[in-house]
Parts: sequence; C-alpha cells; structure tokens
Amino acid sequence: MMRRCGLYSDRLTFLVAVDRHFLRSFCSHIVHNNSLNHSKILYCCGYLSKSWLLLKALSIAPKRQTSSISLTQRLFCSTQSTGENSMKMEAIDRNELEVACEELSNMKRTMKAKVPKGARDFLPEQMAIREKAFRIVTKVFDRHGAVAIDTPVFELKETLTGKYGEDSKLIYDLADQGGELLSLRYDLTVPLARFLATHKINNLKRYHISRVYRRDNPAIQRGRFREFYQCDFDIAGTFARMVPDAEVIKVLCEVLDELAVVSSFHAKVLSSYKIKVNHRGILDSIFELCGVPKEKMRAISSAVDKLDKESWSSVRSEIVERKGLDPFIADKIGSYVLRRDNPQRMLSSLYEDSQLSSMARSSLEDMELLFKYLGDLGVGDCLIFDLSLARGLDYYTGLIFEAVLTTDSNTSLGSIGAGGRYDNLVDMFSSRSVPCVGCSLGIERILTIFEAAEKEWATSLGRKIKANKTQVLVASIGEQMIGERMKLANELWKGNIAAEFSYAEKPKLNKQLQHALEEEIPLLVIIGEDELKKGMVNLKILATNEQREVNRTDIVSAIKQALNLIQVAADS
Amino acid sequence: MMRRCGLYSDRLTFLVAVDRHFLRSFCSHIVHNNSLNHSKILYCCGYLSKSWLLLKALSIAPKRQTSSISLTQRLFCSTQSTGENSMKMEAIDRNELEVACEELSNMKRTMKAKVPKGARDFLPEQMAIREKAFRIVTKVFDRHGAVAIDTPVFELKETLTGKYGEDSKLIYDLADQGGELLSLRYDLTVPLARFLATHKINNLKRYHISRVYRRDNPAIQRGRFREFYQCDFDIAGTFARMVPDAEVIKVLCEVLDELAVVSSFHAKVLSSYKIKVNHRGILDSIFELCGVPKEKMRAISSAVDKLDKESWSSVRSEIVERKGLDPFIADKIGSYVLRRDNPQRMLSSLYEDSQLSSMARSSLEDMELLFKYLGDLGVGDCLIFDLSLARGLDYYTGLIFEAVLTTDSNTSLGSIGAGGRYDNLVDMFSSRSVPCVGCSLGIERILTIFEAAEKEWATSLGRKIKANKTQVLVASIGEQMIGERMKLANELWKGNIAAEFSYAEKPKLNKQLQHALEEEIPLLVIIGEDELKKGMVNLKILATNEQREVNRTDIVSAIKQALNLIQVAADS
Repeated sequence: MMRRCGLYSDRLTFLVAVDRHFLRSFCSHIVHNNSLNHSKILYCCGYLSKSWLLLKALSIAPKRQTSSISLTQRLFCSTQSTGENSMKMEAIDRNELEVACEELSNMKRTMKAKVPKGARDFLPEQMAIREKAFRIVTKVFDRHGAVAIDTPVFELKETLTGKYGEDSKLIYDLADQGGELLSLRYDLTVPLARFLATHKINNLKRYHISRVYRRDNPAIQRGRFREFYQCDFDIAGTFARMVPDAEVIKVLCEVLDELAVVSSFHAKVLSSYKIKVNHRGILDSIFELCGVPKEKMRAISSAVDKLDKESWSSVRSEIVERKGLDPFIADKIGSYVLRRDNPQRMLSSLYEDSQLSSMARSSLEDMELLFKYLGDLGVGDCLIFDLSLARGLDYYTGLIFEAVLTTDSNTSLGSIGAGGRYDNLVDMFSSRSVPCVGCSLGIERILTIFEAAEKEWATSLGRKIKANKTQVLVASIGEQMIGERMKLANELWKGNIAAEFSYAEKPKLNKQLQHALEEEIPLLVIIGEDELKKGMVNLKILATNEQREVNRTDIVSAIKQALNLIQVAADS
Repeated sequence: MMRRCGLYSDRLTFLVAVDRHFLRSFCSHIVHNNSLNHSKILYCCGYLSKSWLLLKALSIAPKRQTSSISLTQRLFCSTQSTGENSMKMEAIDRNELEVACEELSNMKRTMKAKVPKGARDFLPEQMAIREKAFRIVTKVFDRHGAVAIDTPVFELKETLTGKYGEDSKLIYDLADQGGELLSLRYDLTVPLARFLATHKINNLKRYHISRVYRRDNPAIQRGRFREFYQCDFDIAGTFARMVPDAEVIKVLCEVLDELAVVSSFHAKVLSSYKIKVNHRGILDSIFELCGVPKEKMRAISSAVDKLDKESWSSVRSEIVERKGLDPFIADKIGSYVLRRDNPQRMLSSLYEDSQLSSMARSSLEDMELLFKYLGDLGVGDCLIFDLSLARGLDYYTGLIFEAVLTTDSNTSLGSIGAGGRYDNLVDMFSSRSVPCVGCSLGIERILTIFEAAEKEWATSLGRKIKANKTQVLVASIGEQMIGERMKLANELWKGNIAAEFSYAEKPKLNKQLQHALEEEIPLLVIIGEDELKKGMVNLKILATNEQREVNRTDIVSAIKQALNLIQVAADS
C-alpha cells in the first residue's frame, strides 16, 4: 500500500503516499524544506481522499516560508478531528496517483526566491523614500563642508580584529577560497581609521553613507537588520580643543531637525529628541574613585551602559554578582551614574565634588568648553548630561554622546544616533596619531519612522509615493502608432523631459490614462491619426483635466511651459 | 654569539642576530610576514656591519607587500658577492645591539593598513567624480521613467548556483558561521530575477546602481576590480515585440552621449562608440546549419565570442582541437561569424540565405523590427550587426548587444556596456514567466576614462576637482574669535549656505585665505574685532579679489547675492 518518497536536489520525485503516518512525515519533510505553501495545504485537507490533489498542490512550488510544525499540525488537526482520515486514504485511486506522480517527477523544482535573513530588498517606493532621506542627510553634511568617501565592503580580517570587544563574534567572515582572509565591515569607523592610515591623511572632515554587516538577531519591524545603512560624519585631525566635537553634535542635531521639518507628519515623530552627553575621562575617574580595579573598568562601563534599558537593581547585581565587585563599591558607583541633569547644573555639582574634580579636571573642562560652543552653535537646549551613558565600544577616549527620540515628557523612545571621540584608533594602523571625533546616525531606525511619515503625509494629500520621475506619458489612439509614440518620446528625452510611452501594440486610451493617474504622471500627450495629419497633438494636464491641441513641432516648449505652471501651483 | 628571535602577535621581539645563517632565516621570516619594506632592506645591505641599523629599519613597520623570495635573494646577493659578510658580522658592537633590541621589543607592531586585493578606496576627489558620473547616468534612467531598487549585497548561495556557467568559480562565498549559506552577488541580473519572483512583480522598468563581486584577476589600471560598480537598466514584462529591447539600447546610447557631452575633454574619449548587435536565435540557427551538435552549442558560442580579442585561426583551432569539431564545420562557422556589416545590408544578406532565413525567420524579424524602432528613436547610426557577438552568459535568449568605444577609424577600444534579452531567468525562481531585457554599463571602465577627462578639464581651466561643496569660509582676525566664527557659521547654515570655519585657536588670516583658495571656496567672511564693534564684517569674493564691509546682520542675504553673481558669471 505504500511506496517510498524522496526529495532530490533538482527534482521533486515521489510516488505514492497512502499511509497516514508516512504522509505526515512526508509533509513535514516537504514543509521543512520550505517548498510548501500554507493555503495550498489547507485547501487540500478537504480533499484528502483525492490525495493526488495534494501532490498537484505540492507541484506548484511556493515561495512563502512558514513554520513546518504549525503547518503539519494544522493539516492533521483538521483531518484527525473528522476521524475520516484513514478511511479516505484507502479510497485513493491508484491510477490517478500514478499519473500525478509521473507529472511531478518530470517537473523541475523551482528554487525559493528568498532574501537572506536580516537583509532586505528596497522596493521602488521604499527606495524613493530612502533616497529622499539620504538627500536630506547629505545636504547637512555638505553644508558643513564635509567630503564623501567610500571604502570596500570587506576589509582584511586582521583590520577588524580586536576593535569591537565582545561584539567581534558578530563579524561576517568570507570563506577562505585562497588568498587574503576577509571580513565584511562591521561599522564605518574602523574602515575610516584604516583609510586615514592607508592614504596618510592627517585631517579630514568626511561623511560616509554605506552598509555595514552584523550577524545579530534581526528585528525587522524595529529597523534592526543584519545588513544595514550607517550615515557617519567624522572629523579627523588635531584642532582646537572640543571645537570639532561641538560641530559633530551640531551636525547630528541639524540632520534630525531637517528630517523633522519635511511636514507636520514628520515633525510629530522626529522633532522631539535629546542628546545625552558624557565623557570617558569622567566615567573612568568615577570608577577609579569608587575603587574599581583598572582591569575591570571596561566591563563595569558596559554594565552601567545598560541603565537606559535596565533598572539599577539589575545593573547593580551584575556589578556585584557577575563582575565580582564589593556591594559598597557598586553603591558608590550608583551614587554617581544614576545622575542626569542639565549640563550647567551637572557641571557645577561635579566641580563641587572636590575628589572627583581634582581627578577629572581636564575632562570637566572639556565638557565646559563643549557646552559653551554648543551654546554658540544654538543647540544647547537639547543636551542632557547623563553619567550613565558609557557606550559599548572600546575605542572611545573622550566625549561620548547619544541621540534619543523622546516623547513630550522626555521619555526615551530609543537611540537614533551616537558617537564620540576616539583618539587612538588610527594609531593601530599607523605610526602617526590622528585624533578623531564623529557620529553615526541610526538611519535604519530613522528610515522606518521617516517612511511611515512619508506615507501618512501622501495619504493626507490624496497621493501615493511617486517612485518614478516621469513627467509625460506619450499616449496614442488608433493602430500602428508605436513608431509615432517613439519619435515623440525621443524628442522629449532630447529636451530633457522625463517621458514614457506605452509598450503595447494597440494601447487603449483608457488604459494609458489610468497608468498616468496610477503613476502620478502629470502630463499626457495624445497622438491621434486625424490630429497628426493636421500636424497637431493633444496635451492634457491631469491635475486640472485641461486638454488642448498643440502644434506637433512646438510640443517640447508647450510641455516645459505646462510643467512650470504645475511647479508654480505646487510651490504656492 | 647568537640569540633567538621571534615574532609575536602584537610585538616585534628579537634579540641579537650575528650568525649569517640565522640572519638569513630571520629576514626571510620577517619578509614572509610582509612587514619589511624593500628599499629599507637594500639600504641596510650596505651597512651589514652595523646590523642594528637593519633592526632599526625593521622597526619602521612598512606597508608594502613584496615577494619574500626576491627580497631575501637581493639582500644576500649583494652581501655574498662582496665576500665580506661574515667578517663584518663579527665586528658588531654588542652594546649597540642590546640598545636597539630593547627599543624594538618595547615597540608595538602596527598593523598594515591595506585595502583587500582588487578592491579600492574612493578618495574625496574620486568620490566627487564618481557621484557626478552617477548623477548623469541616473538622470538618463529617470528620464525614461525607470525606478530605482536595491537588493542585499549577499544572496542565498543557491540563488546564484547554476546561473553563471564556468564563471561560478569566481563567486565569493561567505564563511559558514551557522545559519544560511550566503554568497556575494556576482551581478545585478540574477538578483533582479530573484527580486521579481520574491515580490511577485510582473512588470518593472528599473535601474540598479550597486557593487558586485568577482574573485577574478584584478587589473586596476584598466578598471578591472574584484569589487566594482554596475549600473543596470532592465525592462521586465510582456510587451509588444522588440519595443523594450529598442528602448534599452536607446538608454545605453543616451548614457554614453550624456557622459561625452560634459566638455570637449570628455567628448574626445567618450563620444566615439558603436553598438554591436546580434541575436541568440540567429547564432543558434547558424550553428545548427553548420552541423554543431546541440550539446556543444554553448561551448562553440563561447569560443566564437572571443573573436573580438583573438584571431579566427586561434578560435578555429579551439573549435577543432579543443571542442573536437570537424574542420569543415569550423570553416562553415567561420563563413558566418566573421561577418559584420551595417544592419540593413546584413539583414538583406541573411534573408537571402534561404536555408538560414527559413530556420531563423522569427529572429531575423526581431532584428528587422529592432532596427526600425531604433531608427524612430534616432540611434540607427551607431549599430553594427556583428555575427561574432555571442556573449558569455548562459541566460540570454534573444537579442544580445555590446557597446564598444572606438577610435575614429572604428577600431574597438574595448567594451563599456552590454546586455540582451533573457526570458527564462525569472522562471528559475517562480512559476510565473517574466521575460526581461536589459543592459549593464561597464561603469568602472567609464569612471577611469571619465576621471581622467574631469582632471584634464579642470587643469585646462586652472582649477582643481572640488570635492567639498563649501561656499563660504568664516575667517577671523585676532584672538578668542572661535565663538564669533561659530555664531556666524551657524547663521549661514540656518540660511542653507554651506560654510566652514577654521578649527584653529588663533588662525592666521593668511592660512585661512590659503585654505579657501586650495579648497576652491568662493567666498570669505572675515570677522575682525574693530569691525565687529561697529557691527560690520568683511565679505571677500576670491575670484575677483573684491572685498567690502557688510552689516553683520545682513550677512546671509549679502552672501546669497554674491553667490548668485558668481553663478551668473559661471553660466555665461
């Protein structure tokens, strides 16, 4: 009654499945290999007596991945509950089955079209939104005189080794296929340090918008990917104390302001933010003062950094139990790092702490200078001096900061950018020392928010996100007009007008009009046989539904005029 | 007389090397680890008696990689030939050596700052040029109503498997670190097919500008990299016959024309090109007619495709000797594939070939239609119907074409773009069939040429490539002006003016002026103490050397006015 079934590399080959237990394991196998579509299985459940229908269904190689367990459960729940299962199984027509199996074994299995875990495609609409966000970010970077650079997506493995502490395990390595050992870049900061060393550059104000790679657990909805964009702005070089540091924070604020200013929908979700600031020198002095041994400082620092997500009692127990510090020391640490205040008040109170202020004098002066400059740059109000801010990465040496979105009541909604000073990273690649300070935008998180705002805005205006830039659709009425549409489109392209024409043999005017409306193409040129004989074509402005005859030879200037009018109307 | 030497992970530790044999193996070790600079070793050869100089030299951690064998050979040739080697070795001063070794063992070994083989950094100037070229390319794509998309840099390994024939060995795999097996994308065409299947898209006119990866032998000077950009334009969907095919070729021509039109320097190197066209259906019919067995068709096709680089006699011998075809068949193939002519003449002569024209009727009609449409689109003149054009990739099914730069006498200077129709690629990922046609620009080659033209052009105008977009440098005279410079720069940024200010504590006016000139910043605002008291600042236009006092409160509008004047002067 039962035959074997097997999945081979390229072909789905199986024969007859009439035993319920076998069918269960068979389905689980198929589903486990992600080649079975959910709804198709459920559909088949009603027809188990005709099990070749199931085979048929399997032959339509599906794309969606679903949990194999939930699928098989659903499949067998519905049949088990009726209790008719095995009986129906007996009723299978052997001949029908043979035919179905023959068909299946001749069918090539199609591959699943799956994006790797934690990575994403950008659909045209998303791409248009991404480009818009990047243009805004780039405009700010350009406005500050920064230059763009780019580096390879992979670096020598040893370039990345020893820079990221515990997170090094998240680095993607390339397979050893002979030659150099390579890894995908983990951030844009280490590549910048390597870049400065490679090209012997001593000062540079640069931005870099590119993808980085981390084998982390993705959380797509919250904008956490394994392949994701970073927008980095850094200033490298020896300059007057805290001046570049201030400009970096200023740039971060300007980027957030410009993203928020697009519309009221953007402002609603992006205009409330705070910049938390701290200084590694102050933090180290606090730890020293509290009695933390030198070799445990970075570990304690990492524990303290969790205070934005965890309670003090949980961080305290990590310090005491896992890091093995005396509870007295932990409490002393707590008496410092739980403090956050506005810059001036915090600074005064730290200066008043005579022990700390003598140990951390220079770092406190750094912060004092920073606040003065940020006042001059008009961004004093968004600052919070937060002693719990520590930042995970090893390479920071001075100022550290983090931008967080907040609600009106200043509750943090999570980080959307961060950075700091790292004066020793370039040294690791070079005998020269090139101090650096910079920030990295959490642009994927911002993009998620920005995209939602763009869509809400478009909806409120009764529009869609326009992914193309087409200004004119060249349409026609009647047969054998492809050549005419092409000739006219060609003239428009020559006149630097973005134009499309229908690719159909005999397109209906209706369909062409509908296409223009769907794609938000503002103008339609309609070529008709009779008009063409008179040397005329029709120009239709979709927004106003206005249509007029235009001399065929004047079409480019007529369109430019119409586009100007539309632009003026949109601007006013 | 001799001590041990060792290289440890982070530190160069070694003691004394006085024995010649030991020195040899020591040097070989160092050199083998690529931490020794060629010229430094040769320099030291003259001073072997002072071998601490060698140690010193080794301490200057160098970056360049050289063959270890040639280095050790050169090093010991020069000393052996003098025969004085061992004697000099005896004369080493022990104390001097001890000091040098002490120094060395205290020195941290710096990492080499090397870009992976076949990859490249983009320096700011190169980046500015790249962005300019991409803007031109994008403008053309946008003008044709195409939308941009993006896909991940890696795909599931199985997505790429079986698409590239022999070239599959050039695919970069990621290391198996658990989870999915991934590979870096090899082109943008297979990812497009996967994208269409994943998102169930039936028609799309899209472009994609992104990097692809091939473990090929790099030839950097000729623009051949292992990580390189492709600019792809493709039309997917079922449309009127040959219409999208014609537009794809039109787009390729427009891109090349727009790149050439930038200046006479660009025109000189980019305006002469030809588009070679052929059809897989015609080629297959020719092979069938000549008696090539079906299973050898793709192999013969690959051999024939080399005719743009190799002579017929070499291709013929490959066909006969390596592919094992009868010499008679090879000669018959030659009688076809050596023919290239203008489209109409070639078409007529192929139609006249009654055997071929009956076998390849539909393909010939395709080409006839294509030439008609390309005439309507105004790009008939650049076409060559070349029967030797075969294209390496397996997936083409119809029209194939290749753009080549030519000299005035039409000699090919190599391919700068190519494409064709591939109707079955999406089928491999989906049960739906989505026919596609597209082209891929050889943008790295174009960038190499474009960059040279940009530089020549700039030089001819007495300018440099401006990598930044800075419009104003905020300068000052006197002390304690940082705050004033910041306040003024902040106002300019607020007014959407791109501005920088000096980061120095007390910058000299000279230096600030020099910086503006070097960076091609057109305007200088100079803040002086006395002027400031009067509420004035100085505005200097560098091109005309004109300087005037401006009311501090009017500075934004004064600058905008000045920028407009400069723009008008540049445009006229």
